[in-house]
Amino acid sequence: MTNPAIFADRAQAGKADETQQLAPKFDANGLITAVACDWKTNEVLMVAFMNAETLKMTIEIGEAVYWSRSRSEIWHKGQTSGNTQKIREILIDCDQDCLVLKVEQAGDAACHTGRRSCFYRAVPFGDAALKQGMTSPLNLRVVDDERKFDPEAVYGKK
Amino acid sequence: MTNPAIFADRAQAGKADETQQLAPKFDANGLITAVACDWKTNEVLMVAFMNAETLKMTIEIGEAVYWSRSRSEIWHKGQTSGNTQKIREILIDCDQDCLVLKVEQAGDAACHTGRRSCFYRAVPFGDAALKQGMTSPLNLRVVDDERKFDPEAVYGKK
Repeated sequence: MTNPAIFADRAQAGKADETQQLAPKFDANGLITAVACDWKTNEVLMVAFMNAETLKMTIEIGEAVYWSRSRSEIWHKGQTSGNTQKIREILIDCDQDCLVLKVEQAGDAACHTGRRSCFYRAVPFGDAALKQGMTSPLNLRVVDDERKFDPEAVYGKK
Repeated sequence: MTNPAIFADRAQAGKADETQQLAPKFDANGLITAVACDWKTNEVLMVAFMNAETLKMTIEIGEAVYWSRSRSEIWHKGQTSGNTQKIREILIDCDQDCLVLKVEQAGDAACHTGRRSCFYRAVPFGDAALKQGMTSPLNLRVVDDERKFDPEAVYGKK
């Protein structure tokens, strides 16, 4: 699609890190990274991608609409699970190649595994990593194992 | 570089979204996205990338080390500005293609513009966007204009 009128031409918008015009930078695949955070706690819930079309849709309808790279299709989050993300704020970074979405997460679960956040495992570092020896794959630590829904019931058996 | 021993082979680690082995998925350019958040408030400070080598360095030294795509070099954050990021926690998402770093940000500024966060401008959406007409580039709203340092003094004139 051609660039929607709501996006400034990057060459004309002035320096991306100071301009007050929306001039998003899409990557070679036409995508921009979007970090969805809980609007109250700031907790990162998930990271996904938008193309120009789905960013425009998100801005228009006030719900998160991503581009699914695995399915190559528009992904209006929550259409299958019911767990939509109502937009409370959209932030863009200095070079305008990344978005932060502050969202009100329906069902309190963003992850397809049924957990609140996709980031439910911790990677050891420093002494904890050294203790594991650094010679074989590091063991992750589950920091949140509460399922807000049963993925099989919602998505069907995979 | 060959895959460090601390990373499991993705084919052998089992399903990425449930395994407890660290099996990061690097993209076609060998990179994984890293979202740096304030360890106390969860505020997203910046989003950058790591390759296998700099992820391993981050795990070992407990400070954020990124891969600079623009300079094609290892980027130990804060080596120029002094604004290092001490790691407090590293989280990895369900499909292990994205990291969240909870960091203690030296100097209280992650952005090269001197601001606390790179995400210092808001994108209008819904009614606020419609009011602007949707026929020309949307105007961003600056939500944080406080400079923690003077970028020219730190990085020199650009």
